[in-house]
Amino acid sequence: MSNVSQIVEAVKTVLGDKDDFIALHEPLFQGRENEYLKDCIDTGWVSSVGAYVDRFSDDLAKRCGVKYAIPTVNGTAALHIALMLAGVKRDEEVLCPALTFIATANAISYIGAIPHFIDSEEQSLGVDVPKLDSYLSAIIDVKDDGSYNKLTGRRIAALVPMHTLGHPVDMNGLEALAQKYDLPIIADCAESLGSLYHDKPVEAFGLISTLSFNGNKIMTTGGGGAILTNDAELAKRAKHLTTTAKQPHPWEFIHDEIGYNYRMPNINAALGCAQLEQLDAFLKAKRDLAERYKLAFEGLNGVEFVREPEGTRSNYWLCAIRIEDGLDRDQILKALNDAGYMSRPLWKLMHELDMYKSCPHMDLSCAEKLERTVISIPSSVKLGGALK
Amino acid sequence: MSNVSQIVEAVKTVLGDKDDFIALHEPLFQGRENEYLKDCIDTGWVSSVGAYVDRFSDDLAKRCGVKYAIPTVNGTAALHIALMLAGVKRDEEVLCPALTFIATANAISYIGAIPHFIDSEEQSLGVDVPKLDSYLSAIIDVKDDGSYNKLTGRRIAALVPMHTLGHPVDMNGLEALAQKYDLPIIADCAESLGSLYHDKPVEAFGLISTLSFNGNKIMTTGGGGAILTNDAELAKRAKHLTTTAKQPHPWEFIHDEIGYNYRMPNINAALGCAQLEQLDAFLKAKRDLAERYKLAFEGLNGVEFVREPEGTRSNYWLCAIRIEDGLDRDQILKALNDAGYMSRPLWKLMHELDMYKSCPHMDLSCAEKLERTVISIPSSVKLGGALK
Repeated sequence: MSNVSQIVEAVKTVLGDKDDFIALHEPLFQGRENEYLKDCIDTGWVSSVGAYVDRFSDDLAKRCGVKYAIPTVNGTAALHIALMLAGVKRDEEVLCPALTFIATANAISYIGAIPHFIDSEEQSLGVDVPKLDSYLSAIIDVKDDGSYNKLTGRRIAALVPMHTLGHPVDMNGLEALAQKYDLPIIADCAESLGSLYHDKPVEAFGLISTLSFNGNKIMTTGGGGAILTNDAELAKRAKHLTTTAKQPHPWEFIHDEIGYNYRMPNINAALGCAQLEQLDAFLKAKRDLAERYKLAFEGLNGVEFVREPEGTRSNYWLCAIRIEDGLDRDQILKALNDAGYMSRPLWKLMHELDMYKSCPHMDLSCAEKLERTVISIPSSVKLGGALK
Repeated sequence: MSNVSQIVEAVKTVLGDKDDFIALHEPLFQGRENEYLKDCIDTGWVSSVGAYVDRFSDDLAKRCGVKYAIPTVNGTAALHIALMLAGVKRDEEVLCPALTFIATANAISYIGAIPHFIDSEEQSLGVDVPKLDSYLSAIIDVKDDGSYNKLTGRRIAALVPMHTLGHPVDMNGLEALAQKYDLPIIADCAESLGSLYHDKPVEAFGLISTLSFNGNKIMTTGGGGAILTNDAELAKRAKHLTTTAKQPHPWEFIHDEIGYNYRMPNINAALGCAQLEQLDAFLKAKRDLAERYKLAFEGLNGVEFVREPEGTRSNYWLCAIRIEDGLDRDQILKALNDAGYMSRPLWKLMHELDMYKSCPHMDLSCAEKLERTVISIPSSVKLGGALK
């Protein structure tokens, strides 16, 4: 049997031979979603303020082990504001993985800053800390007013790791490196809600972290995101910048800087409150599914299931397999999708996209290999078995 | 009796002597909101694609008399993309009223363009077309590659009228002027859904128009907006830019330019479908309320109810009064709010805000007068009497 058919068979072992096309990741609503939505409608509170926004903010902060959470309209908006909060300015550089979803690089661009792409490592699919250290030691000049890229002369203003598919980056290593080069960390946790790094939520690392609650995430608010931090001043400013920078006043409209309409509406927060109540059950279901995939792929040649890094607990947002380099990725993708199991590669690397081709980057050979060899397979919570 | 107490009495005549504080504008949900929301939850479609987004798009286009409507995450996002679609670039100028909500100016800033503030006129509270014509004839140099501001040397890239409180701007006059100076019109219709200019929806004028469905608008999607146009190419590009500029592909993530995550989620569109079904009833209720206010203020000295301009039909989004110049606006605002009738002035003029102080502007004496003399009073649909 070929690698291709072995892989399709292994997925079939786990998911069964269904008639319907099985999506990569669908949300599940088995909690109080309808009740909370109806409450919004009945009370008339659906928009930019409301009790669910406040509650979601509190519940989320507690869950993520941070002091403050500011819900936003989506994860991209959260990243955009987080970068502003960290002091990133036009024409400065921000280090971020070449292997990430487009939102990370776009948020940097919205400020007029320049993404500077860094490599990933095999195990976590996230930032390769030793390799980055070696690269930065060659190009960074740490001055009193910031760290500068010797090659471009531009300030390097921040470092944005992303926990790929939910698997935590080596945050201890990264924090030491960030300190060495005087870089604030903004952790893009869009994919990793519920993941732990040495028993601590991944959102609790760095100066600021951000979440996404898009429909394909482990839990959803329809569209949504959040900015998380332990810093009271940053939290206050996050709220201000996401609410059009309006000063409080009973009737006057005074806005004191260029702000954004990035608030999460109350109706979306209502959905968020109901989903967050189910997060533990979702996490359990996803671990069960990962476990079954792991078994199904055990012993196969040329393919292995992607496991959480040592010392971490992944939310297994997307389950994925790693194929032997040299195998025809697209042939496998086609076979899986043709068999009704929606599957995708990781993202096209950022430095390969037209608008980011001219951005600075380090050697990206591991990211390039991961793009060639990692395939995400169906991972919806409901595939993990009964929740109740 | 003083002007102040007369005004409070007139409002009381219409709204009654209620115990509760009466908001400026609250949404009303008496249609199929709960049914549609439940359908989203039951089917699992809550996020960036779904049947309600498509339906809302179609229903909205039909309602507004345009070929295409692209729902967005809010009105600010719609304006931002509309300006990009019209070809506005960094360091160019965009003409917009000094008398507007902050979103208009902010959207211009997001592109790195510069708002150039223009005056309003007494009757419509919107762009003063003859005065603008006279101003532009002095400062604009129409060249082959666009219209330039002789004083700054910058291209003037677009003209953004806004239909204040729902009252239509003189669009025939404005379209003639836009043609004379070769300027595309982007109509900010955030406040004017349902308003007609010579029997035609205000959204059907200009190259592109935009809507807002924030909770304070005549109908709401929680948070939301839309881009409207008759141009198939612009509509296609609007969809592309609001959906992260991703090319269609079964598994690859290829984004061909810097795009935005500005889609309206399906759950918000579900609310929009239900609200849009009730729009005619909302409009009727608001006209009834406006009629009652008009009567209550008739014959009073120093104050008059703000009426729709000749040849137009306003949605009367916010009912407002105009006080005699010289009366103490803030004393009246305080008295109304203290009596439990939430009231606000128009907005602080854009050129008075710190971040826009250095922007170019024409003489703004009428806008300044309107800021001193117009007060919005409670206008919720439910205050207009029974709907069914």
